[in-house]
Amino acid sequence: MKIAPPKYTRDFYPEEMRRREWIEGAWHAASRSAGFLPWDGPILETLELYKRKSGEEIVEQLFNIASKGSQELAVRPEMTPSLARMIVTKQSSLPRPIKWYTIGRMCRYERGQRGRLREFWQWNVDVLGVEGTVADAEVISVAIDGLENLGLTDADVGVHLNSRRMLSALLIGAGIEEALHGAIYAVADKRSKLPTEEIDKLFAKIGLPESGLAKVKDLFRLTSLDELQSLAREWADEASLVEVDQLRDLFDLLAHLGKEKYCRFDIGIVRGLAYYTGPVFEILDVKGELRAIGGGGRYDRLMETMGGQAMPACGFGMGDVTLGELLTERNLSPASEGLLDDFIIPVRAELIPDMLKLVARRRKEGRRVDYFPKPGNRDKLLKRAIDTGARHAILIGGPEWDSGRQVLIRDLQTRTETIVPFDGSMD
Amino acid sequence: MKIAPPKYTRDFYPEEMRRREWIEGAWHAASRSAGFLPWDGPILETLELYKRKSGEEIVEQLFNIASKGSQELAVRPEMTPSLARMIVTKQSSLPRPIKWYTIGRMCRYERGQRGRLREFWQWNVDVLGVEGTVADAEVISVAIDGLENLGLTDADVGVHLNSRRMLSALLIGAGIEEALHGAIYAVADKRSKLPTEEIDKLFAKIGLPESGLAKVKDLFRLTSLDELQSLAREWADEASLVEVDQLRDLFDLLAHLGKEKYCRFDIGIVRGLAYYTGPVFEILDVKGELRAIGGGGRYDRLMETMGGQAMPACGFGMGDVTLGELLTERNLSPASEGLLDDFIIPVRAELIPDMLKLVARRRKEGRRVDYFPKPGNRDKLLKRAIDTGARHAILIGGPEWDSGRQVLIRDLQTRTETIVPFDGSMD
Repeated sequence: MKIAPPKYTRDFYPEEMRRREWIEGAWHAASRSAGFLPWDGPILETLELYKRKSGEEIVEQLFNIASKGSQELAVRPEMTPSLARMIVTKQSSLPRPIKWYTIGRMCRYERGQRGRLREFWQWNVDVLGVEGTVADAEVISVAIDGLENLGLTDADVGVHLNSRRMLSALLIGAGIEEALHGAIYAVADKRSKLPTEEIDKLFAKIGLPESGLAKVKDLFRLTSLDELQSLAREWADEASLVEVDQLRDLFDLLAHLGKEKYCRFDIGIVRGLAYYTGPVFEILDVKGELRAIGGGGRYDRLMETMGGQAMPACGFGMGDVTLGELLTERNLSPASEGLLDDFIIPVRAELIPDMLKLVARRRKEGRRVDYFPKPGNRDKLLKRAIDTGARHAILIGGPEWDSGRQVLIRDLQTRTETIVPFDGSMD
Repeated sequence: MKIAPPKYTRDFYPEEMRRREWIEGAWHAASRSAGFLPWDGPILETLELYKRKSGEEIVEQLFNIASKGSQELAVRPEMTPSLARMIVTKQSSLPRPIKWYTIGRMCRYERGQRGRLREFWQWNVDVLGVEGTVADAEVISVAIDGLENLGLTDADVGVHLNSRRMLSALLIGAGIEEALHGAIYAVADKRSKLPTEEIDKLFAKIGLPESGLAKVKDLFRLTSLDELQSLAREWADEASLVEVDQLRDLFDLLAHLGKEKYCRFDIGIVRGLAYYTGPVFEILDVKGELRAIGGGGRYDRLMETMGGQAMPACGFGMGDVTLGELLTERNLSPASEGLLDDFIIPVRAELIPDMLKLVARRRKEGRRVDYFPKPGNRDKLLKRAIDTGARHAILIGGPEWDSGRQVLIRDLQTRTETIVPFDGSMD
């Protein structure tokens, strides 16, 4: 009886693997082009680590390990807790800014659905240990480079930007106490999915003071930083004006980095996670059909939460599943690439030893060489050579062998054939 | 309070990551040089899969998942069960020989000790769907290529070869029923760790017939295939002689592939796993100080066990932990490699926008470019540029900027400096 795979996971046959390597290669290249260094943590971490960052609720979403040993462990659902643990461990000795990236698999126990699998790959890019908006601009720029490396453009994806610190200043400027901000963000998060009237109804249910409610409704209708600035001026709120300027600075820096065409202000981007403290962003498909492709922001308080010193930090995560859907929809796929230089075909069994000598010699020269392990029909094996994507087929054992230990090299692209001595150099 | 990492796992800071990438790069290169295609399975598989291959005992060694959903899952402890599951799923449509490799992380719940960690990386190379000893030679050859890519030679490592099918024929030739073979293999497995007298005592305890015991003692003292052949002749056992010849063929094929200096016959190699059916081998350090670096063999019956059709198969696994110890002992490490082309230093804050334009422009040209995100002391930042391993430091905002928007490029290898216009091409 056959055994089923685990639900909502994927098997990577060589064809799917080629696609995964293509995506990962684009991510690696973007990261390294910007001087980020690779890091990785274990696939298992303590439950304590995840609870510390996200609270008890996280446990439901984890694949946690049945009791083994003295530590309660779980399969990692994200990288940021491991990042924080590792940074905190060596916090005083790491040169700053710390620019790190990682590409890795993780698992979440979720209901399987479009864009959500129980195992996925995620690219994480973070800058830690340096103040200022340049770091935010840098991580966003690298995210865009990663997408461009896959052939996506601003006609496909956009970066929707907002600032949690700015929202907070504006809400305080509107006379709304911080205890209510979370509920407001939860409603704002639905802004793109519901009509304005529905959103207003939800705002009304939060229990805001009358004057505050009107201001909140106005605030979350705005679509530009100019409008936001006018509003903050109207309210005569200095703190809000400063924060609007800060976000405007970030847009300027992104323009200097040549990324302005991707970036837009979106007051509906609040990001669910409690730990964000400044600019936040999501990368969305322009058509608005898919889940977020990636997202991130500034999280200046996480190192303290994890037992370290205060340290400014920002970064993003981008998964492979929704991105994969977008790439499929856009017909983007890896360039077909020759995986082999030579495919060697033995026509007679007694020449297997000579064939293996040739295989070893050519591999040693740095060529990628495969062969058929037993003699067979010449035409069938030539077809097999073509199927492997090899550049050359080499026949050993035809008439040219008998007339003086020569082999026939067929160039499978140009379809030309040459006969060369087996013992000499063949190139 | 800081949070501890999981026991017996590793954190990969960029320095450790560089080493991991070096090892994985050597494995990838050897695999691709021989035309193997990459594959991967999920990190979680069903308990059923592992029990099917290894029996109930395996559960103790697994990190199994606390009950979630309808499937009992575990973190993968090896790749072969996933390989078999995936092959069986598409068994009729995959062109043969199937030559696949994978490099991945896996976890075992083990007592932490030298050469044994709870999380490790393993390289797996398999040839399936083709009869004959050429496939065995091929996987062994690729294993050696992977080690040579790391700078190891036959002065460091050896491949110890034996054949389970041959041992079985010889034991039957010695008149010993198959039910007792497992107990004999278990003793033979200790051959390299115990003196001959101790081994003989252990053989005596198995409960073999008197004549058989003498033959078994003789058999496991032999050190060459010639001696083995003489013994089989003496016993007049035809089946054994055929198997001796088969193993001799494998040595010949390895010689044609240029690997003879690595390979030796070792009657003590029996491999614990029940599923091997032909040649078996272990890769050991020449000094005999470490655990096996890798091992494998032929397993022609596994596809049937997993619910598929009969299919010949052979392969090996090689972990990163013991290999890492050997590399450290031999002082082998990755060549230091420049990770950056340019490190840009802003001398004045108002030039950050111009610096970012330069960063974006040079990255677009395919260069790897980092920068310091705020102005600072010129000499300190030059030192920082050197620490990053960049080829060039580029200063923006010195006197050459004021005299006409020029920047200073310092070649950090040759220590020469050139001044070039900011707006023109810099190369």
